[in-house]
Amino acid sequence: MTATIIDGKAVAQAIRNEVKAEVAQLRAKGLVPGLATVIVGKRPDSVSYVTSKRQTCEELGIASIGHELPETVSQEDLLALIRQLGEDPKVHGILVQLPLPKHINEEVILNAVPIDKDVDGFHPVNVGKLGMKGRQPLFAPCTPSGVVELLDRVGAKISGSRAVVLGRSNIVGMPAALLLLGRDATVTICHSKTRNIAEVTRQADILVAAIGKPKFVTADMVKPGAYVIDVGVNGVPVLNPDGTPAISEKTGKPKTKLVGDVDFDAVKEIAAAITPVPGGVGPMTIAMLMKNTLRGAKHAFGLL
Amino acid sequence: MTATIIDGKAVAQAIRNEVKAEVAQLRAKGLVPGLATVIVGKRPDSVSYVTSKRQTCEELGIASIGHELPETVSQEDLLALIRQLGEDPKVHGILVQLPLPKHINEEVILNAVPIDKDVDGFHPVNVGKLGMKGRQPLFAPCTPSGVVELLDRVGAKISGSRAVVLGRSNIVGMPAALLLLGRDATVTICHSKTRNIAEVTRQADILVAAIGKPKFVTADMVKPGAYVIDVGVNGVPVLNPDGTPAISEKTGKPKTKLVGDVDFDAVKEIAAAITPVPGGVGPMTIAMLMKNTLRGAKHAFGLL
Repeated sequence: MTATIIDGKAVAQAIRNEVKAEVAQLRAKGLVPGLATVIVGKRPDSVSYVTSKRQTCEELGIASIGHELPETVSQEDLLALIRQLGEDPKVHGILVQLPLPKHINEEVILNAVPIDKDVDGFHPVNVGKLGMKGRQPLFAPCTPSGVVELLDRVGAKISGSRAVVLGRSNIVGMPAALLLLGRDATVTICHSKTRNIAEVTRQADILVAAIGKPKFVTADMVKPGAYVIDVGVNGVPVLNPDGTPAISEKTGKPKTKLVGDVDFDAVKEIAAAITPVPGGVGPMTIAMLMKNTLRGAKHAFGLL
Repeated sequence: MTATIIDGKAVAQAIRNEVKAEVAQLRAKGLVPGLATVIVGKRPDSVSYVTSKRQTCEELGIASIGHELPETVSQEDLLALIRQLGEDPKVHGILVQLPLPKHINEEVILNAVPIDKDVDGFHPVNVGKLGMKGRQPLFAPCTPSGVVELLDRVGAKISGSRAVVLGRSNIVGMPAALLLLGRDATVTICHSKTRNIAEVTRQADILVAAIGKPKFVTADMVKPGAYVIDVGVNGVPVLNPDGTPAISEKTGKPKTKLVGDVDFDAVKEIAAAITPVPGGVGPMTIAMLMKNTLRGAKHAFGLL
């Protein structure tokens, strides 16, 4: 058996099309959803993420309100900006690109984002509601929502399944576990202190890997017929046939490629479905961010 | 092997003694911790719980600020009281006895309790922080904290263990799972949609039962040597030797007794340690509430 390769790019594109169509309907009524993106400093990875988010906003008709602050900005000034965006009626979502410089307390900044503009879903109130029966957060975090969306679109039965989440980060592992639990999976959360981890993962009908260890999940750790979602994005060196590191002719630096937390080539032979890296969960994050921004706008417009 | 019977009454008493000693030290400096208890209506079980809480406050030197409101109180008036208590510097904890009458939105009321007086730990911010890495809620919910306290005092190794929580309620199951995860257990949460539940529970080094089904956990569902914590409190009819319901001579009504979610007599033969019902987790809830109130007071006094 060879697994269905879950095409995250195609699913993400479908979601973007859905959002674009809804945004167009709102704009026809004079209602314009807006996303504020705030970046501090010039980390190349952060700049690249924020640029993609802003470009996607424009593609979908969402107003992009960008703020670039210097690396040296004070916590007070950043806080003042977040509060101003919090009160700005044109802003329906506020995204603060992480990580922030060390002199700034991330928790203080994120807690200043009003919960009805917290499109990242990182505010403790939104996390708390995610874990509570009978409560629904306005926003679920983007990457975990993308995980669940992929499972749904590929036809996985979540209710009643055994789901194992590897990793318990605030951004992916924990909220993914809470979302799957909310969908009635029996959820186990594994982490660095888990013993006999292969025994646990082999019980999973749905396996979500989010630990940041290249090819950690090997074929013997996977139950035949499982749905495997790989959230890992790890840069590893490209090797020449003789085992030496390949060097880029363009940059003169060692070549790297992206691999996930799952040994894709081996695991795809036994899983029912699997996400590749890149092209699996990755493209979903921005798509879900756009969906959350639309949701925030509909909430503000009284349309939810 | 016969299990250690975990004496919740004794542990709860030890905690009460610790709290009492700390309260006395605070009082010597003129600092008096205060707990406000709010009850709406006259449900006999609620009256009995609130009375115990108030008595315990007095035993430990904590000021007890009681408010009884009629069943017919409006949501607005209840909200006004909560807000007033929220601002009252003599009040360091606010306990709203649940359930509230149906015309009152429980979520609205509980969200009005300031998070630094939320001694029940039910506010979404406190729940969210419980589930987040690097965040600590000021208060963890009382009953789940009691569960962990019992495990600690009986010497269970939580880190690295497999823990299974039966039930995912906001009050017990979910926060117990988050607390155990925070202590580095590998946690699985089971619920009504879990399939082959015995297979899952048999893997547990630590088994927490909080589903409200009398004697649901039978001996074949328990791993030999497991730590079994029974949070269930179920009233069941007492039977005569001939199988007919026993009738109380005093009241003329059928006699009932309390049993837990675990088949105690059978499971105690294989577990390493087990809590009885009553006398296990039950007494811990009020003890942890007192501990939380003391914590709230120390927070307010700038002593944390």
